[in-house]
Amino acid sequence: MAPASNHAELLDRLGEVAVRVGLNIAHGQQLLITAPLDAVPLVRRITEHAYRAGASLVSTFYSDDETTLARFRHAPDDTFDTAAKWLHDGMAEAYRAGAARMAITGGNPTLLSGENHDRVARASRAGSLAGRPAMELITNFAINWSIVACATPAWAQQVFPDLEPEQALARLWDAIFTASRVTNADPVAEWARHNEILHRRSAWLNERRFAALHFRGPDTDLTVGLADGHAWAGGSEPARNGIICNPNIPTEEVFTTPHARRVDGTVRATKPLFHQGTLIDDIAVRFEGGRIVEASARVGQEVLTRILDTDEGARRLGEVALVPASSPISSSGILFRNTLFDENAASHIALGQSYTKCMLDTDSLTEAQLAERGANTSFIHIDWMIGSNLIDVDAITHDGTRESLMKQGEWTSQP
Amino acid sequence: MAPASNHAELLDRLGEVAVRVGLNIAHGQQLLITAPLDAVPLVRRITEHAYRAGASLVSTFYSDDETTLARFRHAPDDTFDTAAKWLHDGMAEAYRAGAARMAITGGNPTLLSGENHDRVARASRAGSLAGRPAMELITNFAINWSIVACATPAWAQQVFPDLEPEQALARLWDAIFTASRVTNADPVAEWARHNEILHRRSAWLNERRFAALHFRGPDTDLTVGLADGHAWAGGSEPARNGIICNPNIPTEEVFTTPHARRVDGTVRATKPLFHQGTLIDDIAVRFEGGRIVEASARVGQEVLTRILDTDEGARRLGEVALVPASSPISSSGILFRNTLFDENAASHIALGQSYTKCMLDTDSLTEAQLAERGANTSFIHIDWMIGSNLIDVDAITHDGTRESLMKQGEWTSQP
Ligand SMILES: [Zn+2]
Ligand SMILES: [Zn+2]
Ligand SMILES: [Zn+2]
Ligand SMILES: [Zn+2]
Repeated sequence: MAPASNHAELLDRLGEVAVRVGLNIAHGQQLLITAPLDAVPLVRRITEHAYRAGASLVSTFYSDDETTLARFRHAPDDTFDTAAKWLHDGMAEAYRAGAARMAITGGNPTLLSGENHDRVARASRAGSLAGRPAMELITNFAINWSIVACATPAWAQQVFPDLEPEQALARLWDAIFTASRVTNADPVAEWARHNEILHRRSAWLNERRFAALHFRGPDTDLTVGLADGHAWAGGSEPARNGIICNPNIPTEEVFTTPHARRVDGTVRATKPLFHQGTLIDDIAVRFEGGRIVEASARVGQEVLTRILDTDEGARRLGEVALVPASSPISSSGILFRNTLFDENAASHIALGQSYTKCMLDTDSLTEAQLAERGANTSFIHIDWMIGSNLIDVDAITHDGTRESLMKQGEWTSQP
Repeated sequence: MAPASNHAELLDRLGEVAVRVGLNIAHGQQLLITAPLDAVPLVRRITEHAYRAGASLVSTFYSDDETTLARFRHAPDDTFDTAAKWLHDGMAEAYRAGAARMAITGGNPTLLSGENHDRVARASRAGSLAGRPAMELITNFAINWSIVACATPAWAQQVFPDLEPEQALARLWDAIFTASRVTNADPVAEWARHNEILHRRSAWLNERRFAALHFRGPDTDLTVGLADGHAWAGGSEPARNGIICNPNIPTEEVFTTPHARRVDGTVRATKPLFHQGTLIDDIAVRFEGGRIVEASARVGQEVLTRILDTDEGARRLGEVALVPASSPISSSGILFRNTLFDENAASHIALGQSYTKCMLDTDSLTEAQLAERGANTSFIHIDWMIGSNLIDVDAITHDGTRESLMKQGEWTSQP
């Protein structure tokens, strides 16, 4: 384990990167943070950096795994369709009034695995419904927002089950600090260089404007058509309030909008998926005309089926992302059991809602026109890893020619 | 210090009393809790009892002394008129939709003493303004709500400055458990008995319907006229949503509405006042026609002046309360430096807003009619201790006769 003073220094740098790179908070902006209770020390570093950078008021809403479990164990069964609509509405009001948003991830990845599935699904659906107005402001990128990670004992124990709790926590912190690029002396400059690489990559893909991507490997033969007028994104970007921010710390992906009706073939997940406290492992699905028509999972089949039945858009794709198998997160060899990390260790697709910012001309197009071009609509957006060093990716141009993008998970043609 | 298992048991009983006596939460009600971060173990006990009692969803908003201080030290000076309006509005929405409210008190009583007074005053005023709609639902008793206390290291250190931190914390917990009446085996039954006594006392005062109270003692000669149509309250009461709750745990007072224009004479505080993180000690004031016309404090004069200048109603009274000097909290001999406890150790008055429930016929009267009868309106409601075992209280009837209510701080005539 690193000496305490070093940990304190790295934690402070992560706080600084969260504020200056992740949010790029503006003078006078309010900041809303959500965090697990174990993240108090990181929240304090973020809060101080936010005030130093000009924030007017930082408000943190903590979640507590223990009280979350208490609900599923002790609340009356007829109350699980309740959500904190007052809080979601309040947050949406804050965003509309100009607040920035920081989410700290790090909860127990399988917290709810042992709880009543029906209650979990009902509570989750009620939460998604109540949270929709606030979530739309995030997915439409109306404001600067970001996610960073905090190591917690429960998470660390699941990532390193063979280590003593203290060692596991230290190892997970090491991995977070490294992946978040705060281990060298000037992390803000390091992030500028990294953003530059992701910008170059997405600019090149936007120039080429391919018609489709073809993923091929063990149990995978999948063609993902890209939306008409899709736009690639990656790294820092301007939110609609004009502030350039990095929505994910870490981030390694370039990503765009698939065509909701032009995905065909089969694909097998290359990593397990941890969704709202439950594990879904070894997912294999078949697409026809953009829609999942067959789906299985060795673990969590019931939860997967529920997800796919959420709404019409839940069986179609809202994102496709390319991440080299040699990304720093991937080379760590760690399965983080947390989407923020695992999706930045492998190429992936996402079920559900697409990102407005990943389409061209979104300001002048109606929702119907965006849908016509292939954008997807759903309550959910669930990233799901399909890349590895066994997967090749070809691009298919509009005249039908093919060129290699990735071989064995590595970029073959890139600027 | 009590053995750990005993502490856990007492903490659980305090959680049970908070839910069953303080809130009397109803099946399907949401519950909003605010608490200092050190109160996590108590919040968990309250949350579990709330779910067992039928709560649908418990949401806790934690405050953190360290990030509060970070704001005053690092945020730009032009941002201190900002408040979390989104959060206050959200809470008001929750109350209107039927949620119950629990406040856990226990922060550092002098947290902000060393900070810039102007920033503290501006932030406090902005918070009061933003919180007004939510606060009105509380002061109008629209919903069941309650306050309980949690011992915290910073608070304990100020109450027992000569003890080691661990001993101080244990002593403060002992005092809280005793005052909150959870030290015997059936605290819920014990509270029923205690409420009975307070009900009998306020019923007798309501029958007598005195015209005024006269406080007399060292540096004190104060006549407090009572509002026309005042109503005494004390102990458990029905909120307007029909739920009978105990808004303060502990509570020892019976209280009513003074007449905002009929208070005359001089009074000296018998305990220091801790208001929003600052200390005001040795307050002495003179009233004329209900209004404070002279005011001094040996410590915190500047803060006192600011308070009195908040608005027109801040110099007039909104509450007068009678508490025997032998109340269990008072006999502990502890100065708690926390209003919830200190106001239940001594008779007191409150500057500012009066309670709707402490007037008769409030449903059929307009605000103007209530004001005509002597009710007061203000952004503030600050309780301030004027009782002790050196103070006598007489009641004055409408025909001008006098009878003794309290001698040397103890009831002389009561049922
Ligand atoms: Zn992605
Ligand atoms: Zn995604
Ligand atoms: Zn009182
Ligand atoms: Zn009061």
